[in-house]
Amino acid sequence: MQVTTPGSARLDADAPGTVRLSVAEASALGMGALLRVGYSGEDAQIIVDQLVDNALCGYKFAGLPRILAIAGDEKTRKQRAPVKIVHETPVSALIDGGNNVGYIVAYRAAEAAIRKAKAAGMASVGAYNSYFSGRNAYFVEKIVREGLVAFHASSAYPRVLPPGAARPALGTNPICFGFPSDRGPVIFDMGTASLMWGEVMLHAHLGEPLPEGIGFDEQGRPSRDASAVLKGGVAPFGGHKGYGLSFAIQALGILAGAALAKGEVRDYGFLFWVVDPQVMLPGGQFQSQMSEYVRQIKALPRQPGVEAIRIPSERAMRERERRREEGIVIEAKVVESLKTL
Amino acid sequence: MQVTTPGSARLDADAPGTVRLSVAEASALGMGALLRVGYSGEDAQIIVDQLVDNALCGYKFAGLPRILAIAGDEKTRKQRAPVKIVHETPVSALIDGGNNVGYIVAYRAAEAAIRKAKAAGMASVGAYNSYFSGRNAYFVEKIVREGLVAFHASSAYPRVLPPGAARPALGTNPICFGFPSDRGPVIFDMGTASLMWGEVMLHAHLGEPLPEGIGFDEQGRPSRDASAVLKGGVAPFGGHKGYGLSFAIQALGILAGAALAKGEVRDYGFLFWVVDPQVMLPGGQFQSQMSEYVRQIKALPRQPGVEAIRIPSERAMRERERRREEGIVIEAKVVESLKTL
Repeated sequence: MQVTTPGSARLDADAPGTVRLSVAEASALGMGALLRVGYSGEDAQIIVDQLVDNALCGYKFAGLPRILAIAGDEKTRKQRAPVKIVHETPVSALIDGGNNVGYIVAYRAAEAAIRKAKAAGMASVGAYNSYFSGRNAYFVEKIVREGLVAFHASSAYPRVLPPGAARPALGTNPICFGFPSDRGPVIFDMGTASLMWGEVMLHAHLGEPLPEGIGFDEQGRPSRDASAVLKGGVAPFGGHKGYGLSFAIQALGILAGAALAKGEVRDYGFLFWVVDPQVMLPGGQFQSQMSEYVRQIKALPRQPGVEAIRIPSERAMRERERRREEGIVIEAKVVESLKTL
Repeated sequence: MQVTTPGSARLDADAPGTVRLSVAEASALGMGALLRVGYSGEDAQIIVDQLVDNALCGYKFAGLPRILAIAGDEKTRKQRAPVKIVHETPVSALIDGGNNVGYIVAYRAAEAAIRKAKAAGMASVGAYNSYFSGRNAYFVEKIVREGLVAFHASSAYPRVLPPGAARPALGTNPICFGFPSDRGPVIFDMGTASLMWGEVMLHAHLGEPLPEGIGFDEQGRPSRDASAVLKGGVAPFGGHKGYGLSFAIQALGILAGAALAKGEVRDYGFLFWVVDPQVMLPGGQFQSQMSEYVRQIKALPRQPGVEAIRIPSERAMRERERRREEGIVIEAKVVESLKTL
């Protein structure tokens, strides 16, 4: 572990008060903290592997600091049961998450989806009775690396207001598609809220106003005060289209069993639909056509001043390779908090 | 058939030069035209049923005038072969559309998806070698009325420019989700372009400028001239998120066989993923939970001045019921053109 000096020429700005950790150091720090919070070694490893990957890909809020959020959440202090398949057919599985955190539950659901899709050609797997949905692209990449096409959506606790409503009714509801190609996984992952909830929390922490037209306070009144919005919610992205997508994802969460734990249709539900491309296009045709498609998009003529056409997930994966060498930058205060958990 | 007078109190404004047709009259008009274009009675019926339904739901451009577009398209004059399954497993089918119009090909694909999902619990069906994708919600409603959950996406001819590109590379790529509920089907359908291509054509026809920031001409330069944009393309909706969705849908089109007819990865592909909710939630749980979810959204407190929270597809289905009684308004010139086809 090395405390770095400002002004280094590395990928991440090493601000004062930050620490740079190698992947091994970050993993060890996270493992120690999670074991102290009460996770088994196997569960702690599943969580840490994702958090380190999130940080490597450049999603700072989704990295090791999430352990502090997990440790602080009241659900973490409630009883947990092992993740369990409660209903299945050759093409499907319904999983009771046993009040385990989403990092573990969605991981187990992704494993089941891989197993079923490899055997049957296609699978639908849902999981419920969980909290925190993790980064969808992480689970989808795991599936895509098995040569499968994946769709993944997660419903969550209400934070988003339908247009015209004065109270949140939808989660930030991410949606993700992943495709294998001869050049590696190609993944598109997005939230359907106009702002990530972590961004609202950060604005509140820093006392900075939110952009106009995004936030609503506890009474449903438009507000730019992030602290007030934390008690209310945000608009969906993209107006009625974003609302419709978020609405559909919440329904997919119901299909994943969201209502089974607490009778509440607007709760966490993780849904995976996985297809073996061989059942559609025999041979490795899909993977090679996918590569050709990416090549064609990248080769398009560009607007003046544009250096490259962006392909979903390409930048995050490139940054991951660089940070594997250069390490992850994290606030020294977070490191101290994790050590004293 | 009755020529109506302006100023009637009916649902649709009956402008001068319009004609109001009953469903039976509209169907007979469409059937006659399609038979003269060379379709069999069975194929003509499949097309007309959808076009009349589109008009009933209020999608004017997607109604009988589409027959003129079908008749005028060069692909309609090329040879057609019967729609045929070329590869299948218990959970999947790949369909060669035989250069038939999308209304027929996607209809047959939806039928295959229903059959497979009922037998296996889940199905993935793709279709290619077709053109014009029809209204996705129409096919999805057909599936949902069998008690199934449906996802449907269509890739198409390039009309949409990725951010930073100077040439279109993506179709207007609609995406659609459908859910059965105790109150009937709930369907969300959207295009991923910033403007429907039919709207661009209408603006060009009327000589009206497009909104700022949407259109690009043949050289990829920003343009508000709709006629110039017809030779170029439009931006995706919702910035990078809309681009990512459109990108993913084009990839799903490849999975549906888009490249198999002409070796072109950016062509029409219709993909259906259908799940029997019973394989996820035994009993009729999904349908009743879906109804409860819709009820909760509609019951939310509202912003001042808002009369109702909108539920996807609710308005179109209500308008359909009214127009079934009141008839469809169509331009007299279109009626004449259809009669002389």
